[in-house]
Amino acid sequence: MVINRWLHSVLDAGRRLLPESITRSGDRDALSKLEALCKTLISSRGEAMGTALASEALKAYHALSVEQRTEFFFKLLADFGASEADVRAAIENYLDEPSGVGAIALHHATEAPRQMLFRRLNMAPKGTYAVVKMRSDLLRLLKQHSDLKSVDADLQHLMISWFNPGFLELKEINWRTSALVLEKLIAYEAVHSMTGWEDLQRRLAEDRRCFAFFHPAVPDEPLIFVEVALTSGIANSVDQLLNEDVDPSAAAKADTAIFYSISDCQPGLKGISFGNFLIKQVVFELKQELPNLQRFSTLSPIPGFSRWLFDEQREQPLEDAESEQFAPYFDPDSEAAQDPAAITALMKLSRHYLKQAKRDLYPFDPVARFHLRNGAALGACHWSADSSARGKKQSAGIMVNYIYEIDQVEERHEQFVNHGEIAVIPRNRRA
Amino acid sequence: MVINRWLHSVLDAGRRLLPESITRSGDRDALSKLEALCKTLISSRGEAMGTALASEALKAYHALSVEQRTEFFFKLLADFGASEADVRAAIENYLDEPSGVGAIALHHATEAPRQMLFRRLNMAPKGTYAVVKMRSDLLRLLKQHSDLKSVDADLQHLMISWFNPGFLELKEINWRTSALVLEKLIAYEAVHSMTGWEDLQRRLAEDRRCFAFFHPAVPDEPLIFVEVALTSGIANSVDQLLNEDVDPSAAAKADTAIFYSISDCQPGLKGISFGNFLIKQVVFELKQELPNLQRFSTLSPIPGFSRWLFDEQREQPLEDAESEQFAPYFDPDSEAAQDPAAITALMKLSRHYLKQAKRDLYPFDPVARFHLRNGAALGACHWSADSSARGKKQSAGIMVNYIYEIDQVEERHEQFVNHGEIAVIPRNRRA
Amino acid sequence: MVINRWLHSVLDAGRRLLPESITRSGDRDALSKLEALCKTLISSRGEAMGTALASEALKAYHALSVEQRTEFFFKLLADFGASEADVRAAIENYLDEPSGVGAIALHHATEAPRQMLFRRLNMAPKGTYAVVKMRSDLLRLLKQHSDLKSVDADLQHLMISWFNPGFLELKEINWRTSALVLEKLIAYEAVHSMTGWEDLQRRLAEDRRCFAFFHPAVPDEPLIFVEVALTSGIANSVDQLLNEDVDPSAAAKADTAIFYSISDCQPGLKGISFGNFLIKQVVFELKQELPNLQRFSTLSPIPGFSRWLFDEQREQPLEDAESEQFAPYFDPDSEAAQDPAAITALMKLSRHYLKQAKRDLYPFDPVARFHLRNGAALGACHWSADSSARGKKQSAGIMVNYIYEIDQVEERHEQFVNHGEIAVIPRNRRA
Amino acid sequence: MVINRWLHSVLDAGRRLLPESITRSGDRDALSKLEALCKTLISSRGEAMGTALASEALKAYHALSVEQRTEFFFKLLADFGASEADVRAAIENYLDEPSGVGAIALHHATEAPRQMLFRRLNMAPKGTYAVVKMRSDLLRLLKQHSDLKSVDADLQHLMISWFNPGFLELKEINWRTSALVLEKLIAYEAVHSMTGWEDLQRRLAEDRRCFAFFHPAVPDEPLIFVEVALTSGIANSVDQLLNEDVDPSAAAKADTAIFYSISDCQPGLKGISFGNFLIKQVVFELKQELPNLQRFSTLSPIPGFSRWLFDEQREQPLEDAESEQFAPYFDPDSEAAQDPAAITALMKLSRHYLKQAKRDLYPFDPVARFHLRNGAALGACHWSADSSARGKKQSAGIMVNYIYEIDQVEERHEQFVNHGEIAVIPRNRRA
Repeated sequence: MVINRWLHSVLDAGRRLLPESITRSGDRDALSKLEALCKTLISSRGEAMGTALASEALKAYHALSVEQRTEFFFKLLADFGASEADVRAAIENYLDEPSGVGAIALHHATEAPRQMLFRRLNMAPKGTYAVVKMRSDLLRLLKQHSDLKSVDADLQHLMISWFNPGFLELKEINWRTSALVLEKLIAYEAVHSMTGWEDLQRRLAEDRRCFAFFHPAVPDEPLIFVEVALTSGIANSVDQLLNEDVDPSAAAKADTAIFYSISDCQPGLKGISFGNFLIKQVVFELKQELPNLQRFSTLSPIPGFSRWLFDEQREQPLEDAESEQFAPYFDPDSEAAQDPAAITALMKLSRHYLKQAKRDLYPFDPVARFHLRNGAALGACHWSADSSARGKKQSAGIMVNYIYEIDQVEERHEQFVNHGEIAVIPRNRRA
Repeated sequence: MVINRWLHSVLDAGRRLLPESITRSGDRDALSKLEALCKTLISSRGEAMGTALASEALKAYHALSVEQRTEFFFKLLADFGASEADVRAAIENYLDEPSGVGAIALHHATEAPRQMLFRRLNMAPKGTYAVVKMRSDLLRLLKQHSDLKSVDADLQHLMISWFNPGFLELKEINWRTSALVLEKLIAYEAVHSMTGWEDLQRRLAEDRRCFAFFHPAVPDEPLIFVEVALTSGIANSVDQLLNEDVDPSAAAKADTAIFYSISDCQPGLKGISFGNFLIKQVVFELKQELPNLQRFSTLSPIPGFSRWLFDEQREQPLEDAESEQFAPYFDPDSEAAQDPAAITALMKLSRHYLKQAKRDLYPFDPVARFHLRNGAALGACHWSADSSARGKKQSAGIMVNYIYEIDQVEERHEQFVNHGEIAVIPRNRRA
Repeated sequence: MVINRWLHSVLDAGRRLLPESITRSGDRDALSKLEALCKTLISSRGEAMGTALASEALKAYHALSVEQRTEFFFKLLADFGASEADVRAAIENYLDEPSGVGAIALHHATEAPRQMLFRRLNMAPKGTYAVVKMRSDLLRLLKQHSDLKSVDADLQHLMISWFNPGFLELKEINWRTSALVLEKLIAYEAVHSMTGWEDLQRRLAEDRRCFAFFHPAVPDEPLIFVEVALTSGIANSVDQLLNEDVDPSAAAKADTAIFYSISDCQPGLKGISFGNFLIKQVVFELKQELPNLQRFSTLSPIPGFSRWLFDEQREQPLEDAESEQFAPYFDPDSEAAQDPAAITALMKLSRHYLKQAKRDLYPFDPVARFHLRNGAALGACHWSADSSARGKKQSAGIMVNYIYEIDQVEERHEQFVNHGEIAVIPRNRRA
Repeated sequence: MVINRWLHSVLDAGRRLLPESITRSGDRDALSKLEALCKTLISSRGEAMGTALASEALKAYHALSVEQRTEFFFKLLADFGASEADVRAAIENYLDEPSGVGAIALHHATEAPRQMLFRRLNMAPKGTYAVVKMRSDLLRLLKQHSDLKSVDADLQHLMISWFNPGFLELKEINWRTSALVLEKLIAYEAVHSMTGWEDLQRRLAEDRRCFAFFHPAVPDEPLIFVEVALTSGIANSVDQLLNEDVDPSAAAKADTAIFYSISDCQPGLKGISFGNFLIKQVVFELKQELPNLQRFSTLSPIPGFSRWLFDEQREQPLEDAESEQFAPYFDPDSEAAQDPAAITALMKLSRHYLKQAKRDLYPFDPVARFHLRNGAALGACHWSADSSARGKKQSAGIMVNYIYEIDQVEERHEQFVNHGEIAVIPRNRRA
């Protein structure tokens, strides 16, 4: 509270000192005012009054409509890019005498001034998060306005630098965590959505673990989080994990940690990958807390299975099968005929899909691609593992384990990246 | 402790997974090993095993001699720069059709791979500080090896991004601060050096304040700190500030805050300026704690005065005076003749120096340049204010106040930056 | 987590060292085992193995049925009281030569050994809370087993010492507080019950404040908490406070703080009064955060009104009125006839009740007694202020303000305590 | 800082409300004022204005001279004791019908009102520590004024309750600890005194550990601390431990933890024993951090050896020896003749002293008594282990190990307490 008051007084003071031309907002429309603020911010004046200017600029941005934001991003594209004259001069210089120094000069000449703008916006209180949100606005516009990709390239470059894994903090999330953070877990859970606080509390009980990455400048916003179940043996049904009673003794006797949900929280950080680091750090963290844990496995959806199965252009033949016969199993509403033969066939096809359905070198399935690239190996597929509507639609309720064997992770990553080779856990070690 | 143990186990595990070719250090010399680690780190393998690789690389770097480090930086220059072929291709592309997209492509092509290397080194535990130290090593080598400036340009670029003011935390330093941080204040105090813990304790007593900027990834290392005395009226002698008895009631009755020492702590952050932000944040912080404070002033050295006064090539005439007559006053050992006329003349010359001695538009004196650029105004000069050897040598013991009037700061900054205009506090408001 | 593991290892180690006669629990029933543990705990052996013994004893207590606990308390009464022989000896001594020393010896002789037992139970992890819970069990039994009051006298004595206001910590409760604490607010709210997390979140919004006392040895358990609304003018309806939309600007413009709910959380701390301290500390805390606040008032229920109004033995006449006519207004289900005359009469009677209905010197109404004793003054009564079933039943939905005027509090407290005098805010200052 | 300001405003407000008769301090002398404050504090008025009254009373106490404090304690003795009339009434009641209830009533009647006074003083900011200091003043007066022991009995009773081990927090002390706490270690080290910050830093290096107990209401004051060296094999010289170079790898390879110094910090807590709990908790803490540790031993002084050896009334014969011949070895200044026979004899005598020299059942030597009572066993004695002046004077530089074997501690404690039996580590397990 006292902090807030302090900040307000800083900002008030700062605002009083802003050039009158900027603060008399009656004089011009919101967008022009924001533009004037941005120009001042990257000038020398920005150096002296950075915090107040940045704060005003973010406030002005916040007040814009979607249309005005679009227009603003186009201004950033047109007026805050690298100067062609400067770039040409630097090119000439470089071509005259190509050298490291020349390359650096050219590198600077090609840096868009909007990068400096974003860096200075960061000086405002909560500036980091505001820039992340700004990028999330921008990403929504990219589909319609692909020209804006250049602006995004600069923002992404900045995000990669700011959200370097070396700056992230792994925190355990549990019932001692603040409600402010917990409510975000409810909102951001992307894989198996939560119905509310009771659902959340079950996922944070003694037989579960949850970890998230945070950035010190955005302390109230998880960046990504993973939910873990502690089990004896590998879990084969997320329905069960989400609904079974809490077992207070599970942690002590568990030999397996099941990563059953990983959710990115910040659309504005798209393309900045944390999941890989998160999983590995959590493996070590769990190993430290619970030395009895022997296995680390996911229980993952197969989001692309039905799309592939019913795709006419599918490259891989289904062997003897016809995809239509399986349609009822993908219908969330129908009590599908439980034909054992069909189930066996579907299960076989799901493995076939995971191992063979590829784009270029790599699996078609995005979740498979993520874990295999991280160095995991393909484990067992499980029938009737996810009876949610989405689970049925995507994969007839089938789920799959990806197994992280830490001492194999690096080798598997290499084989996968270089040769698209998919490590598979032998059948006798899958359960 | 527990944390440390965890980290060790992570790194041990990581190290076990390093390619054997790298870890069998007997096979090759330290430098080649480091080079191999760096190459792996920026390859795809670096993605999977980043933390362990980065940690090994930093350890290997740490073990190098000064000569080997020099050689390593030259390797970074020669082998980790932008590829000429790529740059040329991107140039051609750009010249074909100059555009924002082309400029960005060119920007990427001209980014030296060593930037990626530094970013990945940051993933090691305490990586941020290690990279800062690496730059401080490099800066020491620049005088002899000016070619390495290109490597430094990349490091500086990174530091500017990482140490963005928006990421810094202002912390009050006092006797509750950890010894680990406090001992660094003793080591880093650059203006009025401390003799030890007792000297430090006096500077952290109830009638003093001290603030520092920290970066969350380098929690034990202050980046810059400022020492403040709370006084009634403007202080005219640092000798007195450093030696007077603690006055526990001073804070309550003080109307003035005297910034009597500002010290940068990290040579590796040269060129990344925090002082400006620090002073302004501290002004607000103090105002918040002690609403009675009316004035914010420095009591500053005049480090360039004697150099200017005895410089044969000095541009400004000394009016009637001959500099030789003043020499005894700059001798720390001599009990200088206390000739009132000479003192008056010297005092006049000191103001003359501060106001007139310029390089281009701006004052010759580096401290004057710093504060005036921040938007401060020139206050009074004081005789016999700093009797330390350095104080005598630099400025015959004369010191000066720079006054921060917050509601004038922005305007003064503008006038100074654009026109070199120096704001001067009228005589009647200087005391 | 690591902490828990440590604790377990300590306790395991401790348990291994317990006398075999105690740990072989098969040998005897639960109650005898607990008794043996308690006896050992207050012997010299307790000194060496205190933590483990205390922990075992609490575990054993925890496992008892209600009947066994009753029996256990009777054991404490019979076997852990002061020894009559010792008391008689100390009495003789004292009567021989009455003195301070003799009084102290007698004081020690009359201290029941169960006090030492409770103190040693405190050495177990979470021992403090366990003893508080033990007392709450005991209090439930007192009605049927009034003999046990002696045991409670000892527990209460200890609680008064342990929960001395000097040891309590005032903490602000808000949306940053851990879910572990917040869920307890939902559970313990005693005045205006909460329906769940959304209800709670509204009460912790920007225009509300909440503060609680905590004891450092019981960090997860609030002892008492108060809910405050920030308003312009004195609130006259708790229905409105609980249901109105959040007004983010309310805090800045509020001139009044309304304490609309105070809830004790620990039945085991009955008779140890915190409310008085809490309200006063919160007043200062709010004054500090929001200097604009001019008034501090409760909006309180009148829990004893209907009981008094319909009491045949009521001492005070109702003047002209007959209580039966008002009955419909106390019926939560009936849409009471809204007869203005009846309402006026009821409102008048409510003030009459608050001012005149007394037991000995002091008001019959417990809430009135609490606030007036604290030094508050009687403010306005409000019609249709609490339409909850309880509100209707207790007081026909009427509520009352008690006003805390800090500079009058001490004087009013004195007048009230010594003379039963009730301070009343003049009508023109009540709104 | 903000906190301090808040507190001041609370206290200012409080003070304004104090009865004028009390605050007009000009009217009466300091002592009478304090007495008036104390009387008010235990009256009903104390309930309403407790914090301000308590704070004023402590301030008034603080301003007293030693003579006035003595007088004040005599006032507490005379005027704040149990009322004889009340005690006699309670006795009569009890004798009429001896019962638990009667005993409790008698217990209350014999409680001196000064106990309530001390409890209410605790409500002042930093009240807990102020009462501890008050007792330390009192303890100094007891030698001359043994009557005051009654007052101390009440204070000690309170301290035992407040400083119950269940409320204490074990904290590791290291170079990250605040200077405020660290400087107290320098001041309080009682066994091997520290020369300053450098000496302290060596004792907090990587191959050492230090732990202290704190009370949550006195966060800046360690109550007791222990210094530990991590060694390979049992250390035989404190000279070496204090002076050897830091070995950063020692912790990893250590098999033994040597407790080489335990210091009580608060004279005001005399008679409230923490050492026993501290050592055992530290053993578990170290075991947790460094699982390789196999042995936990002290390296202790033998403070009573010379007093016993040269005592004419010594009960135990020295066998063949004459004590005079050993005198030079106890002289810190003389370069004692290093006669091997004499040394052997002295070493033998030191063990003889530790095992045989007793008062009642227990060893004469206070340090031996402490550790053996805790359940330790006697290990080896070491020649030339402490060459400090004190070490020479007390025990000719001989030191001794007491070994804590955790699984024997309880049994040994019992044997020692009940039979005075001293456990001795067999010679082959002493090194």
